[in-house]
Amino acid sequence: MRIDIITVLPELLESPFQASILKRAQEKGLVEIRVHHLRDFATNKQKSIDDYAFGGGAGMVMQIEPIAACIEQLKSEREYDEVIYMTPDGETMKQGMVNRLSLKQNLIILAGHYKGVDERVRELFITKEISIGDFVLTGGELPAAILCDAVIRLIPGVISDETSALTDSFQDNLLAPPVYTRPEDYKGHKVPDILLSGNHTAIEKWREEKALERTQKRRPDLLD
Amino acid sequence: MRIDIITVLPELLESPFQASILKRAQEKGLVEIRVHHLRDFATNKQKSIDDYAFGGGAGMVMQIEPIAACIEQLKSEREYDEVIYMTPDGETMKQGMVNRLSLKQNLIILAGHYKGVDERVRELFITKEISIGDFVLTGGELPAAILCDAVIRLIPGVISDETSALTDSFQDNLLAPPVYTRPEDYKGHKVPDILLSGNHTAIEKWREEKALERTQKRRPDLLD
Repeated sequence: MRIDIITVLPELLESPFQASILKRAQEKGLVEIRVHHLRDFATNKQKSIDDYAFGGGAGMVMQIEPIAACIEQLKSEREYDEVIYMTPDGETMKQGMVNRLSLKQNLIILAGHYKGVDERVRELFITKEISIGDFVLTGGELPAAILCDAVIRLIPGVISDETSALTDSFQDNLLAPPVYTRPEDYKGHKVPDILLSGNHTAIEKWREEKALERTQKRRPDLLD
Repeated sequence: MRIDIITVLPELLESPFQASILKRAQEKGLVEIRVHHLRDFATNKQKSIDDYAFGGGAGMVMQIEPIAACIEQLKSEREYDEVIYMTPDGETMKQGMVNRLSLKQNLIILAGHYKGVDERVRELFITKEISIGDFVLTGGELPAAILCDAVIRLIPGVISDETSALTDSFQDNLLAPPVYTRPEDYKGHKVPDILLSGNHTAIEKWREEKALERTQKRRPDLLD
């Protein structure tokens, strides 16, 4: 998989892609991530990439021309499955969407910033708009990193133990059950006996019950 | 405001806090962010911070003792309003929750990792569990950065133009209207005439209509 991220703040994305699983996935050649600085595609003398909104009002708007130049150059080099725009008014990201994106080959992710992009960018270039949730951030850079993390960990070979990913929350519409590790007794607070029983059938049943119980209590909407 | 983040991957969080608005907010003294490496609080000889799950199964579990040591040390230094755990089975983050958190003084944020934390950490130390959405990531570090970004931008003085934050999506349960900037004509795709009219009353009305229209089309649930 190849992911091209277009941003006005490439420096913000440095450390997330140089740590942990995202780093290893790139080192193993399972994914190639390129971060493009929008300013490198500025088309005018002042190298501007944003300007005031027509009609007035607070906040700057990202201009169409540098974005168009960057996307058009990338598209001339290879085919892309999706040109994604991270924006709070996009489709809310869920695990099912992430699963589907993990099967794609080439993705462009445009990180919104300031007051957002010129509407014509969305009409002419964007194929998918994604929001990570109903809240507002300073920019789409962290959401772009979140999307990459969620997608890349599903690529076969990225996580060392793939059964771990399958027992995560949401993969079966249930929250994960409680987990415990050593010590058995922390200042009188003990691990449930059943987990120490060695009876794997009983443990599995307990975990299923706890997962269902937790989901019913916290997120009954997932069971609908 | 002071935010203490506890993590097994401090290096992942370096660049997000050294860029853009989060950097400026710290430089202005409006927020102090401290990232604590959980390994510095390991209590045993091997410096372990995770171990296998009791009862078997894939994935490592974060141990209670280093987390307890870190939280207890912080609490001995000052009072905290919340000890937050970032976890996919927490309460879903929304703008209202973010608004409320932006009024707090001191927050601890524990970033989950691996298969999650020992359940006893949640029972004994955590006062609030937050999920940024229904998807699974390699860890809670990026969600912790997302929460910080959303909260910190609301602190007075952080964003240069505060009226900009008030016209963001979600602050009035409406998505933001389309925005446009120069050029007026991009290869025949023109900015709507009304935005060039100079009639501010008409522009405001158009924006309200478009915000409502977009919300009805994309997120009718926000209007309920």
